[in-house]
Amino acid sequence: MRKNYLLTPGPTPLPPSVCEAMARPIIHHRTPQFQAILKEATEGLKYVFQTTNDVFILCSSGTGAMEAAVTNLLSPGDTVIIVESGKFGERWTEICKAAGIICDVLSVEWGKSVNPADIAAKLKAHGDSVKAVFTTLCETSTGVSHDMEAIGAVVKNSSAVLVVDAISGLGAIPLKTDAWHCDVVVSGSQKGLMLPPGLGFISISSKAWKCVESSKSPRYYFDLRKAKKAIEKTDTPFTPAITLVIALNEALRMMKEDTLEKVFARHKKMAEAVRAAMKALGLKLFAPDAGSDVVTAVCVPQGIDGEKLVKIMRDTYGVTIAGGQDAIKGKLVRIAHMGFIEEFDIITGISCLEKVLSQLGYAFPLGSGVKAAEEVFMK
Amino acid sequence: MRKNYLLTPGPTPLPPSVCEAMARPIIHHRTPQFQAILKEATEGLKYVFQTTNDVFILCSSGTGAMEAAVTNLLSPGDTVIIVESGKFGERWTEICKAAGIICDVLSVEWGKSVNPADIAAKLKAHGDSVKAVFTTLCETSTGVSHDMEAIGAVVKNSSAVLVVDAISGLGAIPLKTDAWHCDVVVSGSQKGLMLPPGLGFISISSKAWKCVESSKSPRYYFDLRKAKKAIEKTDTPFTPAITLVIALNEALRMMKEDTLEKVFARHKKMAEAVRAAMKALGLKLFAPDAGSDVVTAVCVPQGIDGEKLVKIMRDTYGVTIAGGQDAIKGKLVRIAHMGFIEEFDIITGISCLEKVLSQLGYAFPLGSGVKAAEEVFMK
Repeated sequence: MRKNYLLTPGPTPLPPSVCEAMARPIIHHRTPQFQAILKEATEGLKYVFQTTNDVFILCSSGTGAMEAAVTNLLSPGDTVIIVESGKFGERWTEICKAAGIICDVLSVEWGKSVNPADIAAKLKAHGDSVKAVFTTLCETSTGVSHDMEAIGAVVKNSSAVLVVDAISGLGAIPLKTDAWHCDVVVSGSQKGLMLPPGLGFISISSKAWKCVESSKSPRYYFDLRKAKKAIEKTDTPFTPAITLVIALNEALRMMKEDTLEKVFARHKKMAEAVRAAMKALGLKLFAPDAGSDVVTAVCVPQGIDGEKLVKIMRDTYGVTIAGGQDAIKGKLVRIAHMGFIEEFDIITGISCLEKVLSQLGYAFPLGSGVKAAEEVFMK
Repeated sequence: MRKNYLLTPGPTPLPPSVCEAMARPIIHHRTPQFQAILKEATEGLKYVFQTTNDVFILCSSGTGAMEAAVTNLLSPGDTVIIVESGKFGERWTEICKAAGIICDVLSVEWGKSVNPADIAAKLKAHGDSVKAVFTTLCETSTGVSHDMEAIGAVVKNSSAVLVVDAISGLGAIPLKTDAWHCDVVVSGSQKGLMLPPGLGFISISSKAWKCVESSKSPRYYFDLRKAKKAIEKTDTPFTPAITLVIALNEALRMMKEDTLEKVFARHKKMAEAVRAAMKALGLKLFAPDAGSDVVTAVCVPQGIDGEKLVKIMRDTYGVTIAGGQDAIKGKLVRIAHMGFIEEFDIITGISCLEKVLSQLGYAFPLGSGVKAAEEVFMK
């Protein structure tokens, strides 16, 4: 007997009603029955995106939705600014380069958030020639979140469109698509939306639609002109991931019932509890000044192998957290507090971390992490 | 109370064990636990594809896998031959054109199958300049299947690679990828593989890999070079559709236990029963000479509205079959006999068709369709 606990920044745990919805007998997608489901899903996403823009549901992972943003907005030879502060910022650059886009990369030290004034300066330096600014709401690889409201205020005055990778963060921390002038917001199903991976989402402002109409990049599967034509008839251009869309409505119903405000407050509290616990355990945060309420990256103490820590927690005790990726592999662990996770999942994660840290020879007062988290939750 | 029955050519009904597998708590994909699942899925697909080639699992619908074939094999300006005998043959042309490929279309009358000699003639006319021949195993829009063995024998002697859309047909009717020289085979999850939509599959021969390596088409999400690099470490380049891959293993286990031979024999018998029933009801088959064992297209009798027929069967009696698409909308209905469908599902479908045809004023001896099907199943 072993119970499994998932505290990873995607996939996140599935609510039982989401699991149940996916297990229902399947229905055909070209029917009034599915049209009603698709309409509800699209409307529900607009609530979560906080937008009146078009929101499309793609049958892909979040990266597919990122590619959709690039190929629909831009033509080969266009110039863009990309904020890179981790692995997922770098992904924007990789996708843009593959599409023949000229990338002016604004490199931000891993663990820090971008200074919106630096974006303003780059935009100014280019005159009106920049077509888009690519950013990341929460950089999952480092746990950092960026100030999208401030970035939106900068970009809205330029001819560029603001593109936000909100794959990690949407439905977990505030993102006011319309109020903050986020022209294109991209997300995925397996994070704040409490679903398995398999759906990509993308919202498009009227400013961004002009780019879609003039883009010369080759595209077919992710062609948003096709998606727009289809959604006008409450349809999808290609076969949708039917069971995941049905499950999406379950997740959206939970979020609407809870309200976004309460969802965000829950994430905030969990993040605070994790940060307090790490401090009590004498562990350093990887992003002390810019840590998000989505996932917390924690430096592994000297002499402890982060990969081993993650492996023992997962394979011996059933608690899955994430390690570091690429350059910071083995040097940090990431504890997610996103989606269908609440207070006692966090307590479980911290308790297991204490157990394995202790077994690996790290000295600290046992229970101090859990106590610090409890104190936050008691407030 | 109403029970629902699905006799559509994708999605097809889900086996209970597949539903159950999708409803399990989710696991993280960068773990040894998921690696074992991915390995089993890849091996199982090779059995169904009848190949030793690489087979990749994409997080997309079948159309995404079709786009992957085009952009990975070809460069803008390349010339290809496309066999068009229905809506899905046309899709190859649309995708190729979007990618800047020059398409020599071999048009085949809807309802007929292609003469392999016509492909040979076109290849000869082009000399060695054709890079690929695009075909469809079963053209879902008309129910026609093409002779892939004969086509493979023609194309293998040219420098072109043979690309087969087996989205509809794989795991339902024979397709010997290696023995028939099918360089690239594309499929999807929601047909013969008895899963919801959301997974695309693609196999690549060594002849086709040379094209992948030299293709200059822009690509990222569907870049098979990334997929190959990842699978060598039993990984995927981007987050896979975890729950669907887990469910895939359930479906593959069922197919392996049953054996492909028995799976194909079941489909053959069901198709025979449907054809016999339609004949007994005095209905004409849309493709009398080239009908597949995957889905049967039936002409709606004069004076009967095919759209209405489908609607009443579905909305009043819970039996979903498909209507005609595009040019043949309203003129035919399509009864699928693919995937997790067996004898008594077919009887149900025919019985419901009899009921609604009778209500719509079509005269025939009630029960004659069911009787003819029973006779086939008794053999």
